Amino acid sequence: MHIKPERIQRDLENLACFGRLKGGGVSRLAFTSADREARQYLRNALIQQGLSVTQDAVGNMRSRRCGKENLAPVMTGSHLDSVPSGGTFDGTVGIVAALEVIRVLNEQGVETLRPIDIINFSAEESSRFGGSTLGSKAITGRLSPKQLHTYKDKDGLSLYEAMETFGLNPDRLESARIRPGEVYAFIETHIEQGRVLDSLGIPLGVVTSIAAPTRIKVYLVGRADHSGATPMDLRADALVAASEIILGVERIASSEAGSHTVGTVGYSHIEPGVLNVIPGQVELGIDIRDINKESKDLAVNKVISLMEDTGDRRGIQINYEITANETPVTLSAEIVDVLKRAAETLGYSYRLMPSGAGHDAMYMAEITNAGMIFVPSQEGISHNIAEYTPLEDIVKGTEVLLEAIVKLANEK
Amino acid sequence: MHIKPERIQRDLENLACFGRLKGGGVSRLAFTSADREARQYLRNALIQQGLSVTQDAVGNMRSRRCGKENLAPVMTGSHLDSVPSGGTFDGTVGIVAALEVIRVLNEQGVETLRPIDIINFSAEESSRFGGSTLGSKAITGRLSPKQLHTYKDKDGLSLYEAMETFGLNPDRLESARIRPGEVYAFIETHIEQGRVLDSLGIPLGVVTSIAAPTRIKVYLVGRADHSGATPMDLRADALVAASEIILGVERIASSEAGSHTVGTVGYSHIEPGVLNVIPGQVELGIDIRDINKESKDLAVNKVISLMEDTGDRRGIQINYEITANETPVTLSAEIVDVLKRAAETLGYSYRLMPSGAGHDAMYMAEITNAGMIFVPSQEGISHNIAEYTPLEDIVKGTEVLLEAIVKLANEK
Repeated sequence: MHIKPERIQRDLENLACFGRLKGGGVSRLAFTSADREARQYLRNALIQQGLSVTQDAVGNMRSRRCGKENLAPVMTGSHLDSVPSGGTFDGTVGIVAALEVIRVLNEQGVETLRPIDIINFSAEESSRFGGSTLGSKAITGRLSPKQLHTYKDKDGLSLYEAMETFGLNPDRLESARIRPGEVYAFIETHIEQGRVLDSLGIPLGVVTSIAAPTRIKVYLVGRADHSGATPMDLRADALVAASEIILGVERIASSEAGSHTVGTVGYSHIEPGVLNVIPGQVELGIDIRDINKESKDLAVNKVISLMEDTGDRRGIQINYEITANETPVTLSAEIVDVLKRAAETLGYSYRLMPSGAGHDAMYMAEITNAGMIFVPSQEGISHNIAEYTPLEDIVKGTEVLLEAIVKLANEK
Repeated sequence: MHIKPERIQRDLENLACFGRLKGGGVSRLAFTSADREARQYLRNALIQQGLSVTQDAVGNMRSRRCGKENLAPVMTGSHLDSVPSGGTFDGTVGIVAALEVIRVLNEQGVETLRPIDIINFSAEESSRFGGSTLGSKAITGRLSPKQLHTYKDKDGLSLYEAMETFGLNPDRLESARIRPGEVYAFIETHIEQGRVLDSLGIPLGVVTSIAAPTRIKVYLVGRADHSGATPMDLRADALVAASEIILGVERIASSEAGSHTVGTVGYSHIEPGVLNVIPGQVELGIDIRDINKESKDLAVNKVISLMEDTGDRRGIQINYEITANETPVTLSAEIVDVLKRAAETLGYSYRLMPSGAGHDAMYMAEITNAGMIFVPSQEGISHNIAEYTPLEDIVKGTEVLLEAIVKLANEK
């Protein structure tokens, strides 16, 4: 069965036209006209392959290549929406790989026992409405009718209103649910968005688990004194206390929790924030992720102890708020095994690895055996117009996907 | 000789009317109408005391109470301008104390050998034109004709234009110079602007030296990677490197340089500065001050070594720029002695202390024996509408000033 790299290349180039930015990259936010154009392209390509295309209440596009028997389908896909000033690979690679799988099977006249379903999830990126993976959340009943009204874009338009404008019927949200057993297996191909594969020179990742974040907002209150007139021993500098926490988050994530724990302070806001005044107040945002709930909880607890200790020792009032606390997902060991064997059959090196970023596969894992294939992100760059994955790696990812799909679709 | 607290209180209250803010405090920027009104109040008060008032080319107001002999005068004063949303004590206390000294001497019919000069320095605060102590810089030849054009306010009006509008003749700048020997001694009374006196419960500070700052802008460049998808050992986080520098500045100033060294990081700007991206770039502003040039240089060199070491160790590119490097000033030992003895005579406790903030006395020290009296700042608050010094402490400061002025003005 022969993947055609030039077909994958052309799909990527064509899809990069929808929401294209002058400097490169795309802005293709969920339920915008750019999103609609990209969906139309996918629909046309699937129809050309003789498939029909349907859309559920939340806008997830689904298309079925029939199987020989009336069994639960094997599903593959990803998402077409992007962040603002995003790249042309995030999400799109998984759609293009799925499309290529269908083309190759049709070209070769391969029949499978089970149907093969292609899916394009709605609104995977949180950029427009503030919530991520909305399509897969709707499928698993994790998007409530109330949230359709509370999620709003920067212009104040609610998700409900945006869906209506897009021609969907948000009142039928519940009808988007897929129940356990209704899908036999799910595989998503995606760019890594980190630098592990690229730095190792390995073309493929077989994802074993998906990390989940705990997010903490920290507020430090010291005293804003004159930077010249206040001796060191009379200070209550909120920024030096914050710096201890920042270094502590790094230390705890690196060596005092799990081997996959990561911890990041992405921003700090300082008041008054001028050269000649000791910082009186600082706000920090901490993001701690792990594929293992216990080690994430351990890291979070250690960070909290560190904050309390730092506050006491330095006379700084430190308050915090846990704004998110999600549970990591272990992907299906069966699918991991199928993907490993597919890569081995094809002679490609791969790495078993966790995903630090969240994906629709996280929610699909609640209703079926789910797995993911990663292809490398050059220099780990993602959510950026400079995002890049070499075509040859996308081709390898697609070959592994094809091999795995055929295998699964022929399981009774 | 009896200081009248109610007179000091009334002067402070009256002067607080010029540039008054609704919520308290004043905005009395240099060469504004509020500044003009405050100057007019001072002029009237001095004229009422039988003194004439002149103004030099840069707007410094001078007024002389004659002595019995034609000798160089003893001078005292401070400034009437304020920062935006400033307090009613910074600068004003030194003017009111000088005025009260004249009133008491007149009331008691005290004659002195030397004349006593009152001075109100122009534009002590840097808030309007970006440069501080402009009046005393003009007196010592440290304000150049070119700077009159390069210093601009936020509306783009140059110092030259603002001076002309204020009725001054900026072309006569050179005429504002005072040569060494032309003034016998100078004493400035000022609020501390730090929390040393307030925290010790001591009403008076005799200032031995004025610290000078070295200011360093630091630019850190790491890599902005995905906070979930980038393992700890593949990161180049500019913010954790910055945090090491922030803690290092505190450690070096506290225990690795001089006993009076202070070091502050007042701001940090982070790019991109969002929760789910590792900080790729950080800019820091460092302010290091000392009353001793050698220990300041030592601290600066240690901070620079630390930055280089941090950059190398963490793979972060660190560049810096020294934006100011001023020399600390030692005040006159004779004046310190006169002030100590005055406080002892009056039975007031005092503390010999450095000034962390800059003052006009810094420049006056270049042309005469200069000294300073500090009165406490409640909780160290300054440059803020909450600035406060108890009247009884201002009275004590004025009594010490009076005692010292009379002593010096009777020296042959």
